[in-house]
Amino acid sequence: MPNSLKVAVVGLGTVGAETIRVLQRNAPVIAARCGRPIEVVAVSARTPGRERGFSMEGITWYDDPVALVSGHHVDVVCELVGGEDGVAGQVVRAALGRGYHVVTANKALLAHHGAELAALAEKNGVALGWEAAVAGGIPVVKVLREGLSANQISCVYGILNGTCNYILTNMRETGRNFADVLLDAQKLGYAEADPSFDVDGVDTAHKLAILTSLAFGTRTDFGAIHVEGIRSLTAMDIAFADELGYRIKLLGIARATDRGIEQRVHPCLVRKDAPIAAVEGVFNAVVAEGQFVGRSVLEGRGAGGGPTASAVVADLMDIAAWRVGPVFGVPVADLVPLPKWSMEARKGAYYVRLMVEDLPGVFAEIAAALRDAKVSMEAVVQRGRAPGEAVPVVMILHETVEAALNDALRRIRIIAAVVEPPQVIRIESF
Amino acid sequence: MPNSLKVAVVGLGTVGAETIRVLQRNAPVIAARCGRPIEVVAVSARTPGRERGFSMEGITWYDDPVALVSGHHVDVVCELVGGEDGVAGQVVRAALGRGYHVVTANKALLAHHGAELAALAEKNGVALGWEAAVAGGIPVVKVLREGLSANQISCVYGILNGTCNYILTNMRETGRNFADVLLDAQKLGYAEADPSFDVDGVDTAHKLAILTSLAFGTRTDFGAIHVEGIRSLTAMDIAFADELGYRIKLLGIARATDRGIEQRVHPCLVRKDAPIAAVEGVFNAVVAEGQFVGRSVLEGRGAGGGPTASAVVADLMDIAAWRVGPVFGVPVADLVPLPKWSMEARKGAYYVRLMVEDLPGVFAEIAAALRDAKVSMEAVVQRGRAPGEAVPVVMILHETVEAALNDALRRIRIIAAVVEPPQVIRIESF
Repeated sequence: MPNSLKVAVVGLGTVGAETIRVLQRNAPVIAARCGRPIEVVAVSARTPGRERGFSMEGITWYDDPVALVSGHHVDVVCELVGGEDGVAGQVVRAALGRGYHVVTANKALLAHHGAELAALAEKNGVALGWEAAVAGGIPVVKVLREGLSANQISCVYGILNGTCNYILTNMRETGRNFADVLLDAQKLGYAEADPSFDVDGVDTAHKLAILTSLAFGTRTDFGAIHVEGIRSLTAMDIAFADELGYRIKLLGIARATDRGIEQRVHPCLVRKDAPIAAVEGVFNAVVAEGQFVGRSVLEGRGAGGGPTASAVVADLMDIAAWRVGPVFGVPVADLVPLPKWSMEARKGAYYVRLMVEDLPGVFAEIAAALRDAKVSMEAVVQRGRAPGEAVPVVMILHETVEAALNDALRRIRIIAAVVEPPQVIRIESF
Repeated sequence: MPNSLKVAVVGLGTVGAETIRVLQRNAPVIAARCGRPIEVVAVSARTPGRERGFSMEGITWYDDPVALVSGHHVDVVCELVGGEDGVAGQVVRAALGRGYHVVTANKALLAHHGAELAALAEKNGVALGWEAAVAGGIPVVKVLREGLSANQISCVYGILNGTCNYILTNMRETGRNFADVLLDAQKLGYAEADPSFDVDGVDTAHKLAILTSLAFGTRTDFGAIHVEGIRSLTAMDIAFADELGYRIKLLGIARATDRGIEQRVHPCLVRKDAPIAAVEGVFNAVVAEGQFVGRSVLEGRGAGGGPTASAVVADLMDIAAWRVGPVFGVPVADLVPLPKWSMEARKGAYYVRLMVEDLPGVFAEIAAALRDAKVSMEAVVQRGRAPGEAVPVVMILHETVEAALNDALRRIRIIAAVVEPPQVIRIESF
């Protein structure tokens, strides 16, 4: 049997500890499958001495992860600390600089510094694996980079954040509002104490930034993503969507258009019979449209120790067997800047909910505003009558350019009887 | 740029011709992604001179594929002829023997001779890629072999034959019977003139045999598979299933049990909310249950020129970049014989439809037969009343061992009022 692959694990939270448990538990089959053993020889974390469910035999402990990387000879460093900068960035840069391969689950770091780190890996002739950074256990990076590599990808989109999908699923099933469901999700450990990374769409955007780079051969450009979260969604919107044949999902979408590459994260109405609509709870799903392969769908657990460790170890096994390739699918020099694209160029249908005072003539004003903006309506639902009070009016607008929709919304906002800012949700027809 | 990978394509049917079109159309991106150009230098097919939508410049034609392999220097031979033996087997063995890599879409050949061919590839230090042999464009081989390789797989199952899935979907949507829908599918090109390979479950079993080998590290054992097709399914069964909350799908299932590894192909009732139930028409889907990753679902187009060529070219790109591994995930010497397992050991629930004369006391006889076999009933539906004529009685039986069910069926068959052999469909709860 050839030499073992020597691994350091930095960060022993849920994913780090589980990674070592997987490596220890499945050691024989892992060695058979990748042709050599994989051995953890060093670890670093903030709290020493805690029982973490794996054997420390043969493993050297470091309090300081940077000291580990500079002082211990390893083949691969697993960075499982997380965070856009700070220790994670230091560890990854130091490891790549010393000629160590790196495996990371850190989407924030890659979304902000992807091209730089890929260049550093390339310069040092080492691998930078990031399967665990997107959609947990679903091998979407491998599928896009290798499985579908014969294709030009026209579109990749998905449910990339289990917390949001859990909240939206629960809101639909219970009819409760966002704030209540979030509180429950926090109690159950499905949402962080500070949920903003998840519910404001930032985590989804991090993942989308690096998937876009891989799918389209572009330099990661987090700043180019249009990002909206799910805080403004109400139980009422979810119920109206259901009635109209839709589910509401927070999607990350990257699509090649003749005006550039769209990158956007926002709640979407998707038809109930679309494959993505059936993905519920903490599950993630990614859909890619390839030129020859057509639509491919991957679904699985997008977070948690087991699934994420499964992806980390798969990357380690690829390195052990030396099945590696360019970080974002092509050499860094071939990555092109992301062609600019503006959200105002988006073409599609829209769900618009207005709260209007129930007075005669209001609907004529709304219809005139739409007409003047050259936006046409496919359906309208008005629920209940309450003379003098605000009632919801939901409209499904035919496909239009978002700039025209914005024009219509400006006209609608100044109608006196429209008492709240319009709720607008884009409809995606996949 | 390093030397190109030189490829011969044997068989220029739908998949062979499309493979060359993909390679020619996407040549620049393919070279960028795998680090070197991939070039078709020789082809062989039965009919020369036909226009096939690709340029023959730089490509040598051979009438005899075996002469191609023995006479032309190449790096890889793509065998796209098909068939369990004959030319395909000759070409593959000759190519491996000469030290050429092989890429094939031939599930029949691998299902019958998988371990032998893997050993030949290993002995000659070459790759044998078969992504295109299972589920067309869905990279299920890559996902099982690499993406989920950190896991022990407990179960892999799927819809592996688009023809059957198209027929079952169409039967449900139109309420028509098998024979009528098959005729339409043949006219539309979704079914062969001789449909037996598809509708009798043989094609699904070929694919299952090699997926099992990969998922469980066992030697391919086609003969160990229990195979049933879809010919006996009626519009009535599909309607009853629908009413009871199920879809009927032809599944290939491999599962590790404490009594061995099940390998079976047969129609199944699956609950409508199971991910596999929503896979309709010509789409394929594969579900794997991994120890750490949990349930992973892959869905996409399982057949056709584009998707299958996408998989062939992905294998070629892996060879060009030398991202390869053992044919069935571990070295041939590590593959273990499939532990024996008998269908009588299957544990699960059952749908049983009887046609009975509508006479007093018949149901008491049926109930007694079940009781005597120690099989219990969850639900029963009887449709219509027609004194003196045969009416359907549909029972859902609680989980039991198949041996006990068979005992019950023997007792039921001899009841005089039961006028047809019972229709039995296994219920799978995933």
